[in-house]
Amino acid sequence: MTQTEQEGMAPALEISAWINTTPLILSELRGKVVIIHAFQMLCPGCVTHGIPQASAIHELYKNEDVQVIGLHSVFEHHKVMTKEALSVFIGEYGIRFPIAIDRPSEPSSIPTTMALYQMRGTPTLIMLDKQGYLRLNHFGHMSDLQVGSCIGRLLAENNEALPL
Amino acid sequence: MTQTEQEGMAPALEISAWINTTPLILSELRGKVVIIHAFQMLCPGCVTHGIPQASAIHELYKNEDVQVIGLHSVFEHHKVMTKEALSVFIGEYGIRFPIAIDRPSEPSSIPTTMALYQMRGTPTLIMLDKQGYLRLNHFGHMSDLQVGSCIGRLLAENNEALPL
Amino acid sequence: MTQTEQEGMAPALEISAWINTTPLILSELRGKVVIIHAFQMLCPGCVTHGIPQASAIHELYKNEDVQVIGLHSVFEHHKVMTKEALSVFIGEYGIRFPIAIDRPSEPSSIPTTMALYQMRGTPTLIMLDKQGYLRLNHFGHMSDLQVGSCIGRLLAENNEALPL
Amino acid sequence: MTQTEQEGMAPALEISAWINTTPLILSELRGKVVIIHAFQMLCPGCVTHGIPQASAIHELYKNEDVQVIGLHSVFEHHKVMTKEALSVFIGEYGIRFPIAIDRPSEPSSIPTTMALYQMRGTPTLIMLDKQGYLRLNHFGHMSDLQVGSCIGRLLAENNEALPL
Repeated sequence: MTQTEQEGMAPALEISAWINTTPLILSELRGKVVIIHAFQMLCPGCVTHGIPQASAIHELYKNEDVQVIGLHSVFEHHKVMTKEALSVFIGEYGIRFPIAIDRPSEPSSIPTTMALYQMRGTPTLIMLDKQGYLRLNHFGHMSDLQVGSCIGRLLAENNEALPL
Repeated sequence: MTQTEQEGMAPALEISAWINTTPLILSELRGKVVIIHAFQMLCPGCVTHGIPQASAIHELYKNEDVQVIGLHSVFEHHKVMTKEALSVFIGEYGIRFPIAIDRPSEPSSIPTTMALYQMRGTPTLIMLDKQGYLRLNHFGHMSDLQVGSCIGRLLAENNEALPL
Repeated sequence: MTQTEQEGMAPALEISAWINTTPLILSELRGKVVIIHAFQMLCPGCVTHGIPQASAIHELYKNEDVQVIGLHSVFEHHKVMTKEALSVFIGEYGIRFPIAIDRPSEPSSIPTTMALYQMRGTPTLIMLDKQGYLRLNHFGHMSDLQVGSCIGRLLAENNEALPL
Repeated sequence: MTQTEQEGMAPALEISAWINTTPLILSELRGKVVIIHAFQMLCPGCVTHGIPQASAIHELYKNEDVQVIGLHSVFEHHKVMTKEALSVFIGEYGIRFPIAIDRPSEPSSIPTTMALYQMRGTPTLIMLDKQGYLRLNHFGHMSDLQVGSCIGRLLAENNEALPL
C-alpha cells in the first residue's frame, strides 16, 4: 500500500464554511474513525473515483462509528471553484455527506488545511483513528478493497471482537 | 451487511484434490485470517465478480497474514464441471491462488464441505479469524468495500495498532 | 430506440464563443456527418457518459467524414457555468474536440440553440446527415452500440459500399 | 480499425448442432446483415466481452434485418468444452440468441468452419452483408462503438435513407 504515515495527532481542520452539516470539530469526534476525502470539484479523478468512494463509505458505515468529511481544498483555478459553484456541484451530484471548504490562505494558492496536512494534491484520502491520531495520508487513488481494509482495522482497534 | 454468523470453530475442509498448492489444513492456519471463496466454474456471478474479487484479495494481502482459498463446490451439472474442466478454467483465467475441490457426497448432489458449512449456493464468501472461528458465511455478492472492511477487522483483532 | 426525429434542415448554431477550434459553420460541413453533444459541465450524466462517448467518437472517426461538436447549453446555474469555468473543465478533463458555447438568450434561461432545437435538457445527442438534415435529436443516454449504429448508417448513405 | 477483409461470398457454415434455434442456412439469410460471434465457452475474453456484446446486438436489432449467430469453435481442450458443457453454459448465462457448434475436423484440432474462415482464435467477429458477402473478419476485441458503426453501415447499404 502506497501511503504516507505521519506521527501524532491530526491537526484541527481550518474551515471557512460547511455544507450538509453543522460545523464538525475533530476533537469532538473521539471514538469515531474519521475519513477525510480532500477533493476539487473540477478534478476528474476526484469526480470519477474519489467522490463515489466517499459516498459509498458514508452509506456503508452511517450507523457505525465512522464520520466521512469531504474537504474542498482548492489550490488552482480559485475563481471558478467558488463556494457557489461547489454548492451547485453538491446538489447536482446528490452528495449527502458533510462537506467542508478548506480556508483560503492568501497570498498562497494552497489553502490552510491542505498546507497543515502537507497534502500533495487531490484526491487525498486521510484517516484518523478513534483517538484522533493521523493514520493515513494518501495522495491518489486507492482501491475499495484497500480503503475498506484500512477502515476495518481502525474500527477494530481497542475493541473486543466485533461482528463483521 | 447481510450475512450469516455462526458460532464456533470452522469445520475442517473436506477436499478431494488441490490445485495451485500442496494441501492446506485449516487447523494449521492459526494466526492467519482465512478467506474461502466457494464457487462453481459455470456460475456467472462467481466468474464475473467472485473470482476477480478473490484474486484481488490474494494479490493485496499476499505478504500479510491472509490465506485465500477457492473452493469448487459443485452442486449441479456435475458431469461437466469436472476436475479436468476446472483445471482448464483455472489455466485460461490465470487464477493463481490455491483451489480446493469440495469432496463429492453421493448420493447427495451437495458436496461435503458445502453441506458442513450449510451454504445456500454459489458464490459464498466465508471468513475465519486467526483462532479458526467462523466469522462470516455470506451467500451472494459483497462489495469490495465491505469485504475489505471485514478483512481489516479480522487482521486487527488481538494485535496492537497496525500500520494501515 | 427512443428518439425524436424532426423534419428538415438543421438550424444554424447560435454560438457566443468557440474553444479548441476556429468557428465551425454547419452549412460549410456538407459532406460530413455532424454529431452535436449538448451538455452542461456540472451535469453528472454528461460528465460520466456523454463527454467520454463524444471523445470516443472524435477519436474513432477523426480521419473520416465525421465532425464532433460539444455544445455547452447552460440553462441553469448560469453564474457558475461561465466560459472561464468551462475552459478549466475542458483543460482538466483533457477534452480535445471542438466546443461551442450556446448563445445566451436573456431574459430566458434557455440559450438560443437549445431553444431552436427544442432540446429538453442535457445530455442531448444530435446528428445531422451529410446534406445537413437533422436526423437524430435524443435527450438522455444512448448506448455506444446505438450511437455507433446511427453514425454508421449516416456514413453509408449516398455512398457505394464502404470498407467497414 | 484493425480488421481483415476478405473478398467474396462467405463460405457456408459447417455445423454439427444448433441450440436455441432450428438450423440456419447462410444462403437463406439474404437481405439480412449476419453477425457471427465465434467463441469458446472457457475463453475469458469471450465470456467477459464477446458474449455480452453479441447479446446486446441481438437485443438491439431483434426487430430489424440483423441475424446474430454464436459459433462455438473449439480448437483446444476439446474434452471439456463438449456440447453438454456448452448447453449448461448457455443456460447458466441466459444466452438467447442462436448458437451453432462448429463441426469437428479430426484429426485437426481446428474445427471446420474456423478453418474455412481462416480464423486466428477466439473471440472472432464476422459480418456478412445482405448479399452474403464477407465484410468483416476480426480477431479480438472491438468496441461497441466500432461494432455498432459497422452494423449501421451494412444496414444502410442498398437502402433509401433509413430512420436511425
